[in-house]
Amino acid sequence: MTCIFCKILNKEIPSFKIYEDNHTYAFLDINPKTKGHTLVIPKQHSENIYDTKENTLKHLISIVKKLSKIIKQATNADGISISQNNEAAAGQVIFHIHFHIIPKFKNKTANKYKEGEAEKLANKIKTLL
Amino acid sequence: MTCIFCKILNKEIPSFKIYEDNHTYAFLDINPKTKGHTLVIPKQHSENIYDTKENTLKHLISIVKKLSKIIKQATNADGISISQNNEAAAGQVIFHIHFHIIPKFKNKTANKYKEGEAEKLANKIKTLL
Repeated sequence: MTCIFCKILNKEIPSFKIYEDNHTYAFLDINPKTKGHTLVIPKQHSENIYDTKENTLKHLISIVKKLSKIIKQATNADGISISQNNEAAAGQVIFHIHFHIIPKFKNKTANKYKEGEAEKLANKIKTLL
Repeated sequence: MTCIFCKILNKEIPSFKIYEDNHTYAFLDINPKTKGHTLVIPKQHSENIYDTKENTLKHLISIVKKLSKIIKQATNADGISISQNNEAAAGQVIFHIHFHIIPKFKNKTANKYKEGEAEKLANKIKTLL
């Protein structure tokens, strides 16, 4: 298995989990555009939106909605951008479908986590779920 | 009624429609990031992902999937980016929830429609549905 996200699901690679159910896993992006940048993925591997089952997509978007509100609250963001890129030309890097949830702020903010900060934020988000 | 998208739904403002069902409407963005840039909206007004009903969102994402494949085919795009922005800080300009479907190309392409080109593309997409 070479897919990085499948390795995260398999716990071969650690992640700061913020949500999990039978079909879905969500964790903090380790190279965030802003703090709180989260990736939401299905447990069943598919490459992109073209080949993801409709039911899987529908469940994913319901979790994206739920997490968007909570991530906004946990980060005091002024807005939330959601994106989902398909194929290299669109900026897809990991070929396991994922939705980005990216908190947006009126004022520029730091986009690197200090030691321990990502874990603390992941825990804060989880307490709000 | 002041919402521009509600006016489009009401046919008070014209649009290049590419898809319509009982709950959903999709049309070409008139200021496209690339040609084929499409907006997918629910007929029932809601502002953003926070206040949109889960069933509405699920239906929207299923239409986004369907249209993504067809828009890729119609435009010969190398990839498709999907985005959905919530609140001004995230770049939301029209406060009626919408998903962007944006074709992406390996090589830079023109992002303005010539006279008649948008209508021609909308028709091409519709024949592929």
